[in-house]
Amino acid sequence: MKRLFLATLAVAASLPAAAQFQKPEDAVKYRKAVMTVMANHFGRVGAMVAGRAPYDAAAAGANVEIAAEMSRLPFIAFVDGTAGNAKGESSAKIWSERAKFAKKLQDEMVKLQAAAKGNNLDTLKAAFGPVGQACKGCHDDFRNP
Amino acid sequence: MKRLFLATLAVAASLPAAAQFQKPEDAVKYRKAVMTVMANHFGRVGAMVAGRAPYDAAAAGANVEIAAEMSRLPFIAFVDGTAGNAKGESSAKIWSERAKFAKKLQDEMVKLQAAAKGNNLDTLKAAFGPVGQACKGCHDDFRNP
Repeated sequence: MKRLFLATLAVAASLPAAAQFQKPEDAVKYRKAVMTVMANHFGRVGAMVAGRAPYDAAAAGANVEIAAEMSRLPFIAFVDGTAGNAKGESSAKIWSERAKFAKKLQDEMVKLQAAAKGNNLDTLKAAFGPVGQACKGCHDDFRNP
Repeated sequence: MKRLFLATLAVAASLPAAAQFQKPEDAVKYRKAVMTVMANHFGRVGAMVAGRAPYDAAAAGANVEIAAEMSRLPFIAFVDGTAGNAKGESSAKIWSERAKFAKKLQDEMVKLQAAAKGNNLDTLKAAFGPVGQACKGCHDDFRNP
């Protein structure tokens, strides 16, 4: 995964964001899709953490890897001109406070990846919560109220 | 990536598909999202192959990895009861010809992953076309006309 992580960073760094989307709405569709995939795989881990699904270390690890990879992808898709007006849509604060945006999520995901490698449910639980809080914190701060 | 590939297979194998989605529409939303992410990253490689973007071996490789990973995810989300009625939606043939569905894409993606590691544009081009044909072939065969 380290190679993929570095390679993903290489992609993020090697092209200007706007060049990757032909139209602003393509960027919006892409970032929503990435969020949907991330939420699904994070949710599968959450089901194990909450006891709604049996704990399976291999499945948890694979789902964490996919969620973590997704956490690195969508933020280049917040291209200029794609703030929303409606409640729940992307706030203009994303662009004015860019340095704060998304960082917490990515940092906590890296910790969750490390925790998942421990093959221990309690370790996984301990690292799961902060990722969920990072999701919520960013949604609270960067979506229109 | 091999670890992630195996781990992804482990996820696919370790839970019944229906158990991963609370509602059929969640499965449809998820598989569409995965397709959107796959198409975006495959398209970035396509831009290089077609000469619309400069060839960058590292970026091509990272995009191929993401596209290939996505190619392994959506097919468990074709759960019973989610065939479509409208043109372009999922055909009932997906369920009656399950063994043929998606296999070609996944096989060609593995070849594209190998090709991308060659760091050579011609090698990448040669493996890119068959993946595109697999996309088209499956869409032709398994979406309602």
